[in-house]
Amino acid sequence: MCAATDLSSSQRTADVVVVGGGLIGLATAWRAARAGLSVTVVAEPVEGSASTVAAGMLTPATEASFGEEALMRFAVLSRDRYPSFVAELEEDSGLAAGYRAEGTLQVAFDSDDMARLGHLGELRERLGLSTERLTGRECRRLEPMLAPSVRGGYLASDDHSVDPRALLEAMRAAAERRGAVGVRDRVRRLVLDGGGRARGVVLDSGNEVSAGQVVLAAGVATPAIAGIPEGVVPPLRPVKGQLLRLRTPGGEDPIVARTVRGLVKGSPVYLVPRGSGEVVLGATQEEQGFDTRLTAGGLWQVLRDAHELVPGVSELEVAETCVGLRPGSPDNEPLLGPTAVPGLHLAAGHFRHGVLLAPATGDAMAEALTTGALPDYARRFAAVRAAGGPPATADGGRTEGGEQDQWM
Amino acid sequence: MCAATDLSSSQRTADVVVVGGGLIGLATAWRAARAGLSVTVVAEPVEGSASTVAAGMLTPATEASFGEEALMRFAVLSRDRYPSFVAELEEDSGLAAGYRAEGTLQVAFDSDDMARLGHLGELRERLGLSTERLTGRECRRLEPMLAPSVRGGYLASDDHSVDPRALLEAMRAAAERRGAVGVRDRVRRLVLDGGGRARGVVLDSGNEVSAGQVVLAAGVATPAIAGIPEGVVPPLRPVKGQLLRLRTPGGEDPIVARTVRGLVKGSPVYLVPRGSGEVVLGATQEEQGFDTRLTAGGLWQVLRDAHELVPGVSELEVAETCVGLRPGSPDNEPLLGPTAVPGLHLAAGHFRHGVLLAPATGDAMAEALTTGALPDYARRFAAVRAAGGPPATADGGRTEGGEQDQWM
Repeated sequence: MCAATDLSSSQRTADVVVVGGGLIGLATAWRAARAGLSVTVVAEPVEGSASTVAAGMLTPATEASFGEEALMRFAVLSRDRYPSFVAELEEDSGLAAGYRAEGTLQVAFDSDDMARLGHLGELRERLGLSTERLTGRECRRLEPMLAPSVRGGYLASDDHSVDPRALLEAMRAAAERRGAVGVRDRVRRLVLDGGGRARGVVLDSGNEVSAGQVVLAAGVATPAIAGIPEGVVPPLRPVKGQLLRLRTPGGEDPIVARTVRGLVKGSPVYLVPRGSGEVVLGATQEEQGFDTRLTAGGLWQVLRDAHELVPGVSELEVAETCVGLRPGSPDNEPLLGPTAVPGLHLAAGHFRHGVLLAPATGDAMAEALTTGALPDYARRFAAVRAAGGPPATADGGRTEGGEQDQWM
Repeated sequence: MCAATDLSSSQRTADVVVVGGGLIGLATAWRAARAGLSVTVVAEPVEGSASTVAAGMLTPATEASFGEEALMRFAVLSRDRYPSFVAELEEDSGLAAGYRAEGTLQVAFDSDDMARLGHLGELRERLGLSTERLTGRECRRLEPMLAPSVRGGYLASDDHSVDPRALLEAMRAAAERRGAVGVRDRVRRLVLDGGGRARGVVLDSGNEVSAGQVVLAAGVATPAIAGIPEGVVPPLRPVKGQLLRLRTPGGEDPIVARTVRGLVKGSPVYLVPRGSGEVVLGATQEEQGFDTRLTAGGLWQVLRDAHELVPGVSELEVAETCVGLRPGSPDNEPLLGPTAVPGLHLAAGHFRHGVLLAPATGDAMAEALTTGALPDYARRFAAVRAAGGPPATADGGRTEGGEQDQWM
């Protein structure tokens, strides 16, 4: 991407301008470019960008919780696309995406935690997610560094992981190789024509990018973009996550061989290994507005729970601490595709699932941008639902709850 | 200090060259310069420099432990010199040293911890250190953010604190104002003349600084200086400390009004407030060689214990994490004054007490450099003791243990 002083003609005019250079914006841009559209991506470095902080778990089986069945079905679909998505991405970009297919082990610290995990077993079966119940001893056979106190767990062989930072680099390269162009700048406002149709965006530099379609994919910053007519984009609440990255001494394998998720006295924690030997520990989930401060309590909570599960983490070096803001929509489900404003699309509100949902989102957005409508599998998440548009029907129909109104 | 490409004549030749730009080196340089000696200080930025990491507690009363009576007497003497030392320093430098005279509250988390603190009460009385025993409620009246579970404690009104980074800046300025000159470089080796007398040092830049007397005050790096005859400087073991600095939101007072030290199930922890609102939390005490890695376990231990004592620390922002190496001598006591090599002095091995002992050390070293002998109050800590020199006698005589031989 180049800084925006003078824009080239391919930067100034495109079929699609995507606002946001995180995983969702780039997945949209890359897949749209592959589908033959000319694309300009406008991105600025954002503090607390969820994409650069995320651990990269692709784990619907160990994430499934009651009340989120439809979202989990979408997540499973997206997870199942990951291998081909990564293969295409690595081919288009020439870069590795850090995909790891070692599976995920979910463990319980005490018998209450084990009961909670078992309870979710029924839900996993209903969703067709295969997991294997293991004793504490079997868990430790897979992951010898687990604490002796671990009571048992579940192995989810199909729950994998990816390195979001590597993924981001690969998507940037792949999008460019497919003809998308980037502009590093902040969007000052959305531009509508006289008929109320989206026509592009004006940047802080004063430059304008004109496009037949505009995709807003700026995470928690999306609703604050100026010029969006009222009621079109629901508020997205920032859900703060604090994480640590731990480094293994020179060239050793990571302390766990696969993603380990745990419940420790009801508190969830995870350890996600990387090929480099690094392990990502996370994460808090705090709802306190646009706050990206690293706090003593956030670090303490993550370290405490990780230490209970895998005491050996104590010996590891702290390579980095990070804080990110997950974009939570009013019903915690993503907002995809056309809005009530002609030419204006959303790809936002992916909350804790942005990495996992990137392939399905990229594909769904590319389809919406080329055909004007979301594919069936994504219709439940239509952006218009939140703005009182016609409710989705058929396979994508909304049957649970009525939370989609609570933000209005 | 200026980088050493071409040295000025006042850098090249001095009465005294001090190797080390930490608190002990600068206290020595400043006090020697005040005593009329010409001084050159050779310093390089060192990873894990104890002086920039130290919390700055001046707390012999709450530090006293059995087996360290003589050291504590020296510490009390040094603490009592602090007010005039700081006054002179601020006058010489024109800078504030961050001295705080709010006292120190030492608290116990449970009744076992309280019993341990009470036990030390007898020792404090023997050392003439006045502390006031308080109930849990009285502790919370002084420090309202203390956990309700705190069982009780002791108020040590004469145990104060200083900001070691401010102190360091002030000492640097004061030494320069008194005519000392600095050279930013690494010492390649000590220079001895044909008669075996110390004559100066050669620097990495190839420059030589000639001086009638050489003071080695480079903390844990001291014994590794090349050219020191065998047996003259004992090994100094690095004792790693990991700390956090927490920031209070904009302009608020620190979360504690005075230094709070606690025992939490036998584990010591402290919170030291600064005028800026910052609080320093520490510290681990780990013996594992020259290791300055910040570890998950180090952070976790400090956060866990601090959180037990003052739960509100959880809300504070992490401003900085630090790792320092305390220089521990074989008997954990400082090594001061002349060595077996004529013209060569030590000011090293201050372990956990470098900040506290800086005034007494600076004065004792200035006396040794001008008169050739340590003052009585410092003779117990004579550097020659460790090299099998004549044992100190009289008030400074060594009566406890025989640990001074264990390094040989």
